[in-house]
Amino acid sequence: MEANVTTIDPITVRCARREDVAVIVAMLADDHLGRARERLEDPLPASYFDAFDVIDRDPNIELVVAEEAGRVVGCLQLCILPGLSSQGASRGLIEDVRVASNRRGHGIGEQLVRWAVERSRDKGLKLVELLTHQTRVDAQRFYERLGFQRSHVGMTIRY
Amino acid sequence: MEANVTTIDPITVRCARREDVAVIVAMLADDHLGRARERLEDPLPASYFDAFDVIDRDPNIELVVAEEAGRVVGCLQLCILPGLSSQGASRGLIEDVRVASNRRGHGIGEQLVRWAVERSRDKGLKLVELLTHQTRVDAQRFYERLGFQRSHVGMTIRY
Repeated sequence: MEANVTTIDPITVRCARREDVAVIVAMLADDHLGRARERLEDPLPASYFDAFDVIDRDPNIELVVAEEAGRVVGCLQLCILPGLSSQGASRGLIEDVRVASNRRGHGIGEQLVRWAVERSRDKGLKLVELLTHQTRVDAQRFYERLGFQRSHVGMTIRY
Repeated sequence: MEANVTTIDPITVRCARREDVAVIVAMLADDHLGRARERLEDPLPASYFDAFDVIDRDPNIELVVAEEAGRVVGCLQLCILPGLSSQGASRGLIEDVRVASNRRGHGIGEQLVRWAVERSRDKGLKLVELLTHQTRVDAQRFYERLGFQRSHVGMTIRY
């Protein structure tokens, strides 16, 4: 069982601010899939800040960060999506979950995801969904541990 | 090859209107998963109309129907979701794709999904994603035929 022991260091989950964009992008870029997709330059491409402004104005989207001792060490985006199915219940979509590579294994991702699940339940959602890449086997086990089921196939077209 | 032949009857894809809600809900209810989730009553529960009004006001969500000879025979919801990843590119999420059971096999679903994919490309999205239930094996083959890859695992919590 020892391999599954996780130290839980308490974090603060708060809304992302414009000055967090660079550290969020650094986390998005810091894995085998993100590396090819992001442009971690200084200064950061304006497209990231433009996207942040759109997110920030959208009442249905919450981009949050995990803060630990004043440092941003994780992020997550929760989208609240209205729909007709399930008697008109909105659903939650969790995206872009990342933890800083030097802070993994401390329960930060778990606290972020639990925050999103509780937030979804508080808002009366009947369903929370996410897509995780086939190759992210550890992530799939992680989500199963937090109560998610591998119920769907996630299909994508990427341009 | 004959089993794959599909008759393509031309349809019109248009924004859903409030008076379409009942026929959309009937399509959502008309399969093994939807039957247990929907309440196809007359009058329809107000929650469906409340959800329609929220969707209708949301500029990021397009609920469309396929109309054939003046009858609604299919539906699809496309959500445009801003995000920081992929250099701040928005992504498209396709949900609630349905075709009236007596009009399946006529290329209606294909035209709806192609509409959503083209719409996403026109809006400059880099990614279109969807979740399809593990048990919907035909749907998975259908989406693969339209260019989608089985790249992700779709995970859910349902309350």
